[in-house]
Amino acid sequence: MGRVTSRVRATRVDLAGEGHVSERVETLVVEAPLEVRVEGLSFSVTMRTPGHDFDLTIGFLLSEGVITSAADVRALMHCQDEDESGSPTYNVVDVALAEGVARPAPEDGRRVLTTSACGVCGTASIDAVRTSGRYDVAADETSYEPDVLVSLPERMREHQKVFDRTGGVHAAGLFTADGELVVLREDIGRHNAVDKVVGWAAREGLLPLTGHVLVVSSRASFELTQKAYLAGIPALVAVSAPSSLAVELAREVGLTLVAFVRASRLTAYAGVGRLRLAPGEPVSDEVSVPDTAVSKTG
Amino acid sequence: MGRVTSRVRATRVDLAGEGHVSERVETLVVEAPLEVRVEGLSFSVTMRTPGHDFDLTIGFLLSEGVITSAADVRALMHCQDEDESGSPTYNVVDVALAEGVARPAPEDGRRVLTTSACGVCGTASIDAVRTSGRYDVAADETSYEPDVLVSLPERMREHQKVFDRTGGVHAAGLFTADGELVVLREDIGRHNAVDKVVGWAAREGLLPLTGHVLVVSSRASFELTQKAYLAGIPALVAVSAPSSLAVELAREVGLTLVAFVRASRLTAYAGVGRLRLAPGEPVSDEVSVPDTAVSKTG
Repeated sequence: MGRVTSRVRATRVDLAGEGHVSERVETLVVEAPLEVRVEGLSFSVTMRTPGHDFDLTIGFLLSEGVITSAADVRALMHCQDEDESGSPTYNVVDVALAEGVARPAPEDGRRVLTTSACGVCGTASIDAVRTSGRYDVAADETSYEPDVLVSLPERMREHQKVFDRTGGVHAAGLFTADGELVVLREDIGRHNAVDKVVGWAAREGLLPLTGHVLVVSSRASFELTQKAYLAGIPALVAVSAPSSLAVELAREVGLTLVAFVRASRLTAYAGVGRLRLAPGEPVSDEVSVPDTAVSKTG
Repeated sequence: MGRVTSRVRATRVDLAGEGHVSERVETLVVEAPLEVRVEGLSFSVTMRTPGHDFDLTIGFLLSEGVITSAADVRALMHCQDEDESGSPTYNVVDVALAEGVARPAPEDGRRVLTTSACGVCGTASIDAVRTSGRYDVAADETSYEPDVLVSLPERMREHQKVFDRTGGVHAAGLFTADGELVVLREDIGRHNAVDKVVGWAAREGLLPLTGHVLVVSSRASFELTQKAYLAGIPALVAVSAPSSLAVELAREVGLTLVAFVRASRLTAYAGVGRLRLAPGEPVSDEVSVPDTAVSKTG
């Protein structure tokens, strides 16, 4: 496996201090391409942080709809690539599919968000992903304590070894509803971190991830919400803002979407019914306004 | 054009305050797919914030190597797609290429970081992008005042209208070496924000962007560094951390890469010679260590 961090010399310029130019050795998160091949044919290339490449591959192929469970994969191999110094690179994974699993058409590679029949408005994208979703997330009756949810980003941070060293990496953490960490993955790409979590769970035979919650160190995009949905996770907690299409998708499929999580605060954009709130009606501090439909046209 | 923000109802839970559940109307950044077609054939789909779609398309096709200048494009059209309510969606752009410009092969769509001959180790990726680079960034003799560079993220923030409303959007800003803002673009995807800046500059006939500096609100990934290089920008300033491959690419092509920029501090990872530092040798506050090569294998 390739390295997760690397060290380089850098020049720090501190305009506030004396002796303000210093040379230092800084630790960076490694970014390197991973080529995923299916039956020897190139399917996609993603920039990722090395490590857990098989989990990443499985999670990615699940998200793409190439496979529907880990059982659809017969074997995973790191190809024996070498760089110019003769060292192995481990930057190519070849996937052998199980008997009866359809090979993806070459033009399907990386065309994540569309189908040939898709008019690519937001609604069409949601329809496309709903078709490929196998799990009825809306039927998941798990409920969550807000106290627990707001604590999860900090719990995740405590386990982020690469972030501590580099300050430049995203994380995805799978927790139980009670707030116990099940698995944590770090990657320079937030989508890769989620793919690594989902791929791990698929290989462990844990899908659908009923009763769990996925925490991401980033914003909640459509893509991350989609990945949570496809893995059967009923709740997604994001440290930062959600996008319009993430909220729209979460509402359509019945996924709880919580974002802008701070030490004692959160905002629920979808599936608020799963939060164990104090009895009684929510207190409204605003004049009632109809919910403005999320723009279909973007 | 589709909307840039949308409003949705959300539930705020404040565990620290009284009456801690409130319903609010929140403003979100819109995320919607943009399908880029070349001569009527689907080339890629990207999730983006609507607006400046033609600039985004041009910048994206430049980064992909499909075109080498705005003159390679004969016409840009928003397709007349409609959603189910009959409203136009503006989520498809069709590109007509100028005479003599080769159509991309269908399998080139979204295969940004590899070529069929590429072994996808880091070095191979860099070789691939260097081949397609038209501009000799290393020969750019622009120099920069550190005082100016550290001020740029804050200057960019002052102009970020969408961020102010949503807290969930990236920005890319093109500045002169003296710190004057030339153009700013916001998008849910940091790569889209950069594509919109570069596409705008290409359509204005400003490439290569000699003597400028590109500022990004995010980390410095390989992809963003590559886009700066392909546009002939000699300096990239990132608010957050760089990746290993971003540093490697910047060093190879002679681009100045500055990251972790704070109010009075920055760290230069490549091309430090362009910074106007105090005379004399850099003060080293560490025992001298050889520069550890960035891992080729990841």
